[in-house]
Amino acid sequence: MSNNNSQSVNFSETFLNQLNGQPFPASEKVFLNGSDGIQVPMRKISQSDTLLESAQGKISYESNEDIYVYDTTGPITDKNCFVDIHQGLPLLRKPWIAKRDDTLEFIASNNPVPSANFEPQTTTCLRAKKGSAVTQMAYAKAGIITKEMEFVAIRENLNRQAYQSELLKTQQKGESWGANIPDEITPEFVRKEIAEGRAIIPANVNHPELEPMIIGRNFLVKVNANIGNSPVSSNIEDEVEKLVWSTRWGADTLMDLSTGDNIHQTREWILRNAPIPIGTVPIYQALEKVNGIAEDLSWEVLRETIIEQANQGVDYMTLHAGVLLRYIPMTANRLTGIVSRGGAIMAKWCLAHHQENFIYSHFEELCQILKQYDISISLGDGLRPGSVYDANDEAQFSELRTLGELTKIAWQHDVQVMIEGPGHVPLQMIKENMDEQLRHCYEAPFYTLGPLTTDIAPGYDHMTSALGAANIGWYGCAMLCYVTPKEHLGLPNKEDVKQGLIAYKIAAHAADLAKGHPGAQIRDNALSKARFEFRWEDQFNLAMDPMTAREYHDATLPKPSAKKAHFCSMCGPKFCSMKLSQDLKRDHKAEQVSLKTVTGKDIQLAETQTDDGFKSMSQKFKEQGSNLYVNAENEE
Amino acid sequence: MSNNNSQSVNFSETFLNQLNGQPFPASEKVFLNGSDGIQVPMRKISQSDTLLESAQGKISYESNEDIYVYDTTGPITDKNCFVDIHQGLPLLRKPWIAKRDDTLEFIASNNPVPSANFEPQTTTCLRAKKGSAVTQMAYAKAGIITKEMEFVAIRENLNRQAYQSELLKTQQKGESWGANIPDEITPEFVRKEIAEGRAIIPANVNHPELEPMIIGRNFLVKVNANIGNSPVSSNIEDEVEKLVWSTRWGADTLMDLSTGDNIHQTREWILRNAPIPIGTVPIYQALEKVNGIAEDLSWEVLRETIIEQANQGVDYMTLHAGVLLRYIPMTANRLTGIVSRGGAIMAKWCLAHHQENFIYSHFEELCQILKQYDISISLGDGLRPGSVYDANDEAQFSELRTLGELTKIAWQHDVQVMIEGPGHVPLQMIKENMDEQLRHCYEAPFYTLGPLTTDIAPGYDHMTSALGAANIGWYGCAMLCYVTPKEHLGLPNKEDVKQGLIAYKIAAHAADLAKGHPGAQIRDNALSKARFEFRWEDQFNLAMDPMTAREYHDATLPKPSAKKAHFCSMCGPKFCSMKLSQDLKRDHKAEQVSLKTVTGKDIQLAETQTDDGFKSMSQKFKEQGSNLYVNAENEE
Repeated sequence: MSNNNSQSVNFSETFLNQLNGQPFPASEKVFLNGSDGIQVPMRKISQSDTLLESAQGKISYESNEDIYVYDTTGPITDKNCFVDIHQGLPLLRKPWIAKRDDTLEFIASNNPVPSANFEPQTTTCLRAKKGSAVTQMAYAKAGIITKEMEFVAIRENLNRQAYQSELLKTQQKGESWGANIPDEITPEFVRKEIAEGRAIIPANVNHPELEPMIIGRNFLVKVNANIGNSPVSSNIEDEVEKLVWSTRWGADTLMDLSTGDNIHQTREWILRNAPIPIGTVPIYQALEKVNGIAEDLSWEVLRETIIEQANQGVDYMTLHAGVLLRYIPMTANRLTGIVSRGGAIMAKWCLAHHQENFIYSHFEELCQILKQYDISISLGDGLRPGSVYDANDEAQFSELRTLGELTKIAWQHDVQVMIEGPGHVPLQMIKENMDEQLRHCYEAPFYTLGPLTTDIAPGYDHMTSALGAANIGWYGCAMLCYVTPKEHLGLPNKEDVKQGLIAYKIAAHAADLAKGHPGAQIRDNALSKARFEFRWEDQFNLAMDPMTAREYHDATLPKPSAKKAHFCSMCGPKFCSMKLSQDLKRDHKAEQVSLKTVTGKDIQLAETQTDDGFKSMSQKFKEQGSNLYVNAENEE
Repeated sequence: MSNNNSQSVNFSETFLNQLNGQPFPASEKVFLNGSDGIQVPMRKISQSDTLLESAQGKISYESNEDIYVYDTTGPITDKNCFVDIHQGLPLLRKPWIAKRDDTLEFIASNNPVPSANFEPQTTTCLRAKKGSAVTQMAYAKAGIITKEMEFVAIRENLNRQAYQSELLKTQQKGESWGANIPDEITPEFVRKEIAEGRAIIPANVNHPELEPMIIGRNFLVKVNANIGNSPVSSNIEDEVEKLVWSTRWGADTLMDLSTGDNIHQTREWILRNAPIPIGTVPIYQALEKVNGIAEDLSWEVLRETIIEQANQGVDYMTLHAGVLLRYIPMTANRLTGIVSRGGAIMAKWCLAHHQENFIYSHFEELCQILKQYDISISLGDGLRPGSVYDANDEAQFSELRTLGELTKIAWQHDVQVMIEGPGHVPLQMIKENMDEQLRHCYEAPFYTLGPLTTDIAPGYDHMTSALGAANIGWYGCAMLCYVTPKEHLGLPNKEDVKQGLIAYKIAAHAADLAKGHPGAQIRDNALSKARFEFRWEDQFNLAMDPMTAREYHDATLPKPSAKKAHFCSMCGPKFCSMKLSQDLKRDHKAEQVSLKTVTGKDIQLAETQTDDGFKSMSQKFKEQGSNLYVNAENEE
C-alpha cells in the first residue's frame, strides 16, 4: 500500500462552515423518540399561512402543517451540534453495541497510523466473541428487536401520525407488483423482514457513527452514491467533502470506490464522518496490494483486505462471487464484454489460473468473517451488461442464479445479503430483471446501477439511467445506485454528485409514489398546494433543491415582491391559469348559477355555497347534458 | 394588438455564424432521394477505423460504417446553403403545393406590415379553392400519396437499408403494446395511417419552408419544444434564436406560446425560418385582442385570430374545445384546479356567460376553416391535472371522452387531429391515460406534456417528467411535449431549452427502443462498440450532445493523447474493465485451454480459435460443472 500518512488534509473552511448546523431553508432537524432514549432524526419544513380572500374581499388566514422529511444528513445539520471533521461524528450506536455484550475489543495490527491532523474518537476495533454472530439477521432470527430495527421503523414512518390535514393523508392508490408494504412500519415488521432476508440494515459494529437505515422492497426506495479517488485524480479532501455533500443531497448509502493512493486513510476519514452505511469493493484495494496484477491476487490477499476494512467499519462489501469460470466464455460474443471492474478482475484471474473464482470457492469462509462484524454482503454482478445490446443475456442471468445459491449460503451464516443488478437495459426488458431476481434470489433486496435505458447520451447518463431506475424501483428494486453525468467520461466532481443524486432521489420518490408507499405523497400534496396558493417561499422550501428553485424563479422575477405575486413569469397575470382557477373557485362558490346551454334550455341550479354545491351542479349537468354537442350550422 | 413593426431585430452574428453550414462534429447533411426530385435530409456521422491487435501483436484496421441520424435542423446545417434569417428558408414545398392546383393565392388583409429588416420571400397567402379540402387526410382518403407522405416515409426509415454490419441490424425485441410498426415504412403505409387518423403530417399550405414529419403511434416518437415570449420577458430575437437552437437539439415540432408584445411578428419570423411544424394556442392572441379580459372573448374574435394565423402558416393549433360547462365544477375539489391556461380561459368564459364553450359549439365551422389550410387540430386538454393528487380524475377523463367525440367530427371534415394529454401523473397511473386515450379517441395520435411523475422537484421538472414521458411514449404516445428545468418557476432561456430537449430526446429514444422500432438501436450499438474499442472521438461524435461529452472527458483527461488511451479517468489503466475484457477476448482466442475446476478434475478443451470455440468451452463447462459450488471447508 502506498499510504502517505503524513499528508495534511485541509478542508475548505467555507464549505464546512456553510454546512455545519445549517439545514436547508425553513428547515430544522427534529428527533422522534423511540424507547430507551432512541432519537430518530427528521427534517421538519415549516410553512407559511394560506391567505384566504372571500368573494366579498374579506381576508383570513389558515395555517399549513409542518412537513417531515427523511433526513440523511446526520449531525452536521443539527444546530445543537458542531461537527469537527478531524474528529468524526458522535458514536450513536456505541452503547447499543456495548449493551449486547457479544463483541470483544482489540487493536488491529494492520491499521496504519492515522493522518497527522486526524484524531478519531476510537482506535480500537470490535468483532464478535468467538462463536457468536453479531448480525441483525442473527438477532432477528432469534426474535430480538434491536435498537437498529426500532430506529429504522420510526424512520420509515416519516412521522405520518403527526398530520391532521386530510389532504396530506390522501394519496393515489399504488401498484406495488406484489410487495407487502404495511400501513405502519413496526419494529416487529422490520425484524421479520430481516429474519426472512427481504431487508437488510448494513451496520458494521465498527461503524458506531451510523444512523441505521433499511434496504428492502417493502420499505422506502433508497439511493446509493459512489465516490472515490482514482489513480489519475482526486484526493482525501475531495472525497470527504463529497461524502458530506452526498448526505446533504439525500444519499442513503455511499460506496467508496477509491483505487488510487491513500485508500486506507481516505476510507478512515469517510467512515468516521459517515452517518450513512459505507460500502466498498475490497478487490480494488487487494489489487493495489499486488501492484495491479490480477493474476497475483489470491484468497489470502483478499481476506486480509476484507479484515482490514472490516476493522475500520465498512458496512457492506461488494464481492463478485458469482463470476464463475464457466460463465466467462458466455461474454465472448458480447458487444461490450465485461464492464464490471470487479467482474473483469475476477474473470482475468480465473482464466489465468484455470481455476474457479476464489471468492466463490471460499464463500463460507468469507461469511464466517462477515458475520463477526455484521458486514452485509452485496453480491456483485460482475457480468452485468454494459450496453443495451448485451442486456438480459445468458451470462447475466447465469450469474444471477448463482447469486441466488450464494444468498442461501450467506443466510445460513446469518449474513445479510443484497444482490447487485444492471446496468444497461432498455425499458421493455427491465421488469424481467426484477422478476428473475425475485425468483432466483428469494426476495433478497435488489440493488441496481440505473439501469441505463439507452447508450446514446454520454454526458446525460444520470438521465438515461434515472428512467430505468424509476421503473425498476417501482417494480421492487430496493436501492438504486446513482449514475452521474460524467459516467463513461470522467470522474464526478461535486456538482456531478449533486446532479446524480437529485436524478436518483427523483427516481426513488417516483417509485415510492408508484408503489403506493404510505405517506409518500405528503410532500407532493404540500408542494402542490403551496404552488396553487402562490406561496412561493413554501414552494421553494418544500422542493428537493430549494436553492435552485429560488434561483430559477429569481432569474426572471428577482424582486422580493414577486414572491408574493399571484402569478409568475411564465404567463404573467392575465394568463395565469392558477389565478384564473382560484378566482373561479372563489367567485362561483356563493352565487346563484344559471346556465344557458347550447340547446337553449335554462338549467337552474341550487345555491352552490360550498364545494358540495359545485359538485351537485356538475351532477345536474351530467344528467341533463350528457350529449350537448350540436352541429354548429344547426345552431346558428 | 400592440405590434411594434419598426422594431429592429439584431441577431447575434456569432451565434448564427456558428450554426450556418455547421452541423455537429464529424457530421454532414446528406439527402436521400425519393421520386420526382424529393430529397430527404439526414445527418451522416462518420466513424474512425477499429484498431485490431492480434495475440501476436499484429496490427490491422477494420472500418466502421457511417451512422445516419434523423435530422431536424433544416437547411441551416447544410454546408451548401447559407440561411439568411432575415429572408427565411427556401420554399421546399412550394412546387408540391402548386402542382396540386387546389389552392388559390390572395393577399391577407389583416397581415401587418413586416418588420423593417425582414424581407420574406412571399407576401401572399394560399387557401383551398372553394369546396376543396387540401388536407393530407383528404388526399389519403382519396388514395393519393402526396410528396409529404413519401418524404416522411423515407425519413422514418433512417436509411436502414444502407447498413451492411450485422451488429447494426441487430436489436432487442420490443414490446409495443399493440402498436403496428412495419419493418419498412412505405409511402402507402403512411397514406393508410393518415387516412385512418392514426397519424398526422402537420403542414399548412402557407408553410412551404416545412420539411414534412409525421406524428403517430406507429412511427418514431416525436418531441415538441415550447418557446414564446411573455408579458414580463423575452423578445423576437430571443424567440427566433430559440427556434434555431431547438431544431439543433432535435425538436420535431415547436409551439410558439407568445403572450406578450409582437405576437404576430414573432410568429412571422419563426414560421419563415422553421423547417419544422409550428403550433400555437390561438386563444392566447385572441385574449390579447380583448385586452386580457376572458369574458370579452367570442367565437368571432377567435375565428379572426385563427384565420390570421392560418394565413401565416401555423401548422397545428391547440384548441380547448373539450372544456365543457358541465365539466368545470368537477374541478372544484381539485388540489390545483385548472392549470391549462387555455382551459382556464375557456372555463372563465363559460361560467361568466353561463354558456357552452364557444369552440365546442362552433366546432364544425372551425373544421371548415382548418381544412382550407391543412391545419391540424391539437385538441387541448384544458382540464389536465396540475398535480399528482389530481391525476386521472373525473374532469380529466370526461374531457378526454369529449375530445374523442370531436375527433370523429374533425375527421368527417378531413381535418387531421391529435389529442393532448397530461400533465402530472404518477408512474402507476400513466398507462391508464394511454389506454383511455386509445379507446375513446379512436387511436388519434396522443401528445402529452410530460407527464411529471412527482411534484417535489421544481427546478428539475425536465427530469421528473422525462420519466413519465419515456413510459407513455413506450405505451404508445406519439409526441412528447418537453418540460424545461424552469417549469413552474420562470421562462426558459437557451440553456433550459437545450436541457429540456435533451431530456425529451432521451425519453423518446428510450421509448423507440422499448417499442422495438426498427433501426432504433443502430446508434446505441455503434456508440457501445466505439466505447468498448476506446474510440473516444467516435463516442463523442455519436453522442446526443457531442460537445458536452467531450468537455466532460477533457475535464479529467485534457491531453489529446488521452483520446487514444485504452482507459479513462474513472478507473485508470489497471482497473479498466473494458481493457481487461478486451485483453481476455484476445488472449484466449488462440490458446489451448486447460481448466482445473475446484473439483480437481481437468477439463481439456479443443482449440478455441474463434468465438465459437469460446462458446463451446462455455457449453462444456455448463455440462460438466453445473453445480461447481463446493463447501470451502471441504475443499481446503
